[in-house]
Amino acid sequence: MVAGDQSDPVDVLILGGGPGGYVAALRAAQHGRSVTLVEARRVGGVCLNEGCIPSKHLARFAAVKSTAEAWRGAGMPAFAGPPDLRAFQKSRQAAVNTLVGGVESLLKSAGVTVVAGEGRFVGRTRVCVQTGEESIRYFDFKDCVIATGSAAVAPAELPFDGGRVVDASRALEWEEPPTTLQVVGDDYIAVELAVAYARLGSHVTLSMLGERPLPGFDADLSNAALQGLKASGIEIVPGADVRGAPAFDRVVVSIKRTPSLDRLDLATAGLRKTGDFLKVDAQLRLDRHVFAIGDVTEGLPLAHRAMMQGRAVGDVLGGQAAAFETTVVPQVVFAAQELATAGLTEQQAKAAHGEVVVGRFPLAALGRAVIESATGGFAKLIFGSGGGPLLGAHLAGPRAGDLIAELALAIEMAATADDLALTVHAHPTFAEASMEAAEVALGRPIHIRRKRS
Amino acid sequence: MVAGDQSDPVDVLILGGGPGGYVAALRAAQHGRSVTLVEARRVGGVCLNEGCIPSKHLARFAAVKSTAEAWRGAGMPAFAGPPDLRAFQKSRQAAVNTLVGGVESLLKSAGVTVVAGEGRFVGRTRVCVQTGEESIRYFDFKDCVIATGSAAVAPAELPFDGGRVVDASRALEWEEPPTTLQVVGDDYIAVELAVAYARLGSHVTLSMLGERPLPGFDADLSNAALQGLKASGIEIVPGADVRGAPAFDRVVVSIKRTPSLDRLDLATAGLRKTGDFLKVDAQLRLDRHVFAIGDVTEGLPLAHRAMMQGRAVGDVLGGQAAAFETTVVPQVVFAAQELATAGLTEQQAKAAHGEVVVGRFPLAALGRAVIESATGGFAKLIFGSGGGPLLGAHLAGPRAGDLIAELALAIEMAATADDLALTVHAHPTFAEASMEAAEVALGRPIHIRRKRS
Repeated sequence: MVAGDQSDPVDVLILGGGPGGYVAALRAAQHGRSVTLVEARRVGGVCLNEGCIPSKHLARFAAVKSTAEAWRGAGMPAFAGPPDLRAFQKSRQAAVNTLVGGVESLLKSAGVTVVAGEGRFVGRTRVCVQTGEESIRYFDFKDCVIATGSAAVAPAELPFDGGRVVDASRALEWEEPPTTLQVVGDDYIAVELAVAYARLGSHVTLSMLGERPLPGFDADLSNAALQGLKASGIEIVPGADVRGAPAFDRVVVSIKRTPSLDRLDLATAGLRKTGDFLKVDAQLRLDRHVFAIGDVTEGLPLAHRAMMQGRAVGDVLGGQAAAFETTVVPQVVFAAQELATAGLTEQQAKAAHGEVVVGRFPLAALGRAVIESATGGFAKLIFGSGGGPLLGAHLAGPRAGDLIAELALAIEMAATADDLALTVHAHPTFAEASMEAAEVALGRPIHIRRKRS
Repeated sequence: MVAGDQSDPVDVLILGGGPGGYVAALRAAQHGRSVTLVEARRVGGVCLNEGCIPSKHLARFAAVKSTAEAWRGAGMPAFAGPPDLRAFQKSRQAAVNTLVGGVESLLKSAGVTVVAGEGRFVGRTRVCVQTGEESIRYFDFKDCVIATGSAAVAPAELPFDGGRVVDASRALEWEEPPTTLQVVGDDYIAVELAVAYARLGSHVTLSMLGERPLPGFDADLSNAALQGLKASGIEIVPGADVRGAPAFDRVVVSIKRTPSLDRLDLATAGLRKTGDFLKVDAQLRLDRHVFAIGDVTEGLPLAHRAMMQGRAVGDVLGGQAAAFETTVVPQVVFAAQELATAGLTEQQAKAAHGEVVVGRFPLAALGRAVIESATGGFAKLIFGSGGGPLLGAHLAGPRAGDLIAELALAIEMAATADDLALTVHAHPTFAEASMEAAEVALGRPIHIRRKRS
């Protein structure tokens, strides 16, 4: 078949059915657009099938086990045996299937046509989709959204071999914890995998490229991650050689992800990359009728950023005055303790605003944290000076991943320390730490001593 | 010794060292006031010594156990034996001691004088404190804060006997779970105790006075509490006879608390109650130099309300333009799933505002909840019509007690559904449910189908 033969005219064509693409499809359909979604594998993308969801499932499984063990001295019975990772994998797969089925059902109900295959441009407004080994379909679109995501890249010295040396997605599928595991990397994925497998019984070595885990995070969070890794019995090798060591049963590498753009034939459509990425405006527009969202655009390669962009581009496609200008993309790490951040680090805030006010409250002074022996955590809030708004929030401790929501909203709404301090927070909860940190920033701490000046 | 002999002049005298009183003391001292705190027992009050803290400790212990058990089918090993409640009690007492020691240390560091004993008025500006069996001290105050709290009251038909029939505080001290337990009541204390002991192995019957648990809460939360009680194997008896049944090994009664005011000789100081309570203005003032905070004032008898009032009265005593006018006092229940509420119920919102917009998002559609098999919960947000602000929030599910903080702040800041929907919430977290509920309220749901109108 020749390009141009039997081409189907479509209204909105979305390349990629991950969290960016499927949300864009749903939202555009809500606005009455007719949407065709092209996805080679199952909808939900890396996030749902082999990323966020299964990794948090594994992290949670390991955390439930280690939490019960931590209560041993307080009367919790011991476990009768080791965890059954084979049974866990069945349950993990069932959860993924439930969620993929949910997305499929939402797409169907919204009238979105899903085409199984891989798309590439064959003209300015034409995409060809390889739908089978010998079958190809062509689509002429009015608007197109590129949402093809990203993929883990192996360093040349340490290529993935699909068995012993794998990327993070494969490391979520093991049916028993490796006896010895080397995790190469220092990002949140590396930290989460190291902690989870250490909790499940592996001897874990974390080979970091640099000097600290979670580079780019506030230094206090990096330090909390480091303390948690050590407390979990993980050996830390900073400034490590990425070539890997043959001594380990398994090696998982999380060093870099790159946008999945190479097979799109962008040039055919007159499109091009800026560096590794697609450069879009606030309406997610790359070209007059081509948009891009998610990991193919510059920014944190996180599902919730992609989903928010998906909503925004869906609104734009629906003729709404929408934009993705959100400054605050929270990040959560399910490390030995949960870590979460939103807004600026202390360093960034000082660079951008000169003087800032930092309120730091240790969980050791919090009733709820004493109950749960979670006294190593903290809430650290950074405010503009002179009663200025919240600029950044950094939390370490139980439930931090959910507590950051309050602070992301606070930054978006330009809440001040007074706003946070004067909102009643339920007692005894971990949420009180943010209120206490605000009081610290105001110079009137409640449950810690005031520093004498 | 005669009243008037050897009286000590004091600046600020605070009666009661619970969460209201000790926070007021710390804050007034921060403003340079000289504070004397009168407390007959240990500082921290009912909350810290025998209420919030130990009850949440027990609830958490029971929840850790039942969470691990819930993961059995997903590969978590079984427990080797029953929990050791005796060991738990040691740990619980240690946590309370740590926290009481912390408050004592804060008070000492702030220069607050703590007088052990029970106070009562013997004149307009004079209080006498029974500091020992034969020793009495007199204090002439410039300003006085009444923060004597409240106590559980037994119904005449079912008096506490200190053994089989007890109040909630005593029920936290048992060294083994009763074989059969009757919980009489329907408030959050009754619900939490019933669930905790059911999880620890007791056969529990909940004898409710009315037809539903948590009367006063949004009906959807009452219903979630009821479902959770049933799922925990608890027998529910609505419209129960409060006389109790001799068939139970233990009976715990949580029906009513009354302000602890009777032994204060209020009339001697020209003070009087309004109904059961002390009626104060926005500055917590009862009389020119007498203030009252916490459970002796009308409102929810919760520690976090008392603490916020304590901060406010401390500021007033320090000459600041402060007030306690906060409308939003969140409530949290550690039931079979966590339940939390802030602001108006749907019924209240409709009564106050006429038309409202309700956004309800079921956790069954949330990735994080599917991972944790917590699909019975929900987020329910109530907004003013026509893009109006958040009026009420009702959450059921894991971490609801901490997630309510975002929504309490949202209500205080008059956030709209757009504000919540357009704030990026980290994926996959429970916090996403609030964002999704806001999108539902806006008529553009993401992860559930849109209702056809």
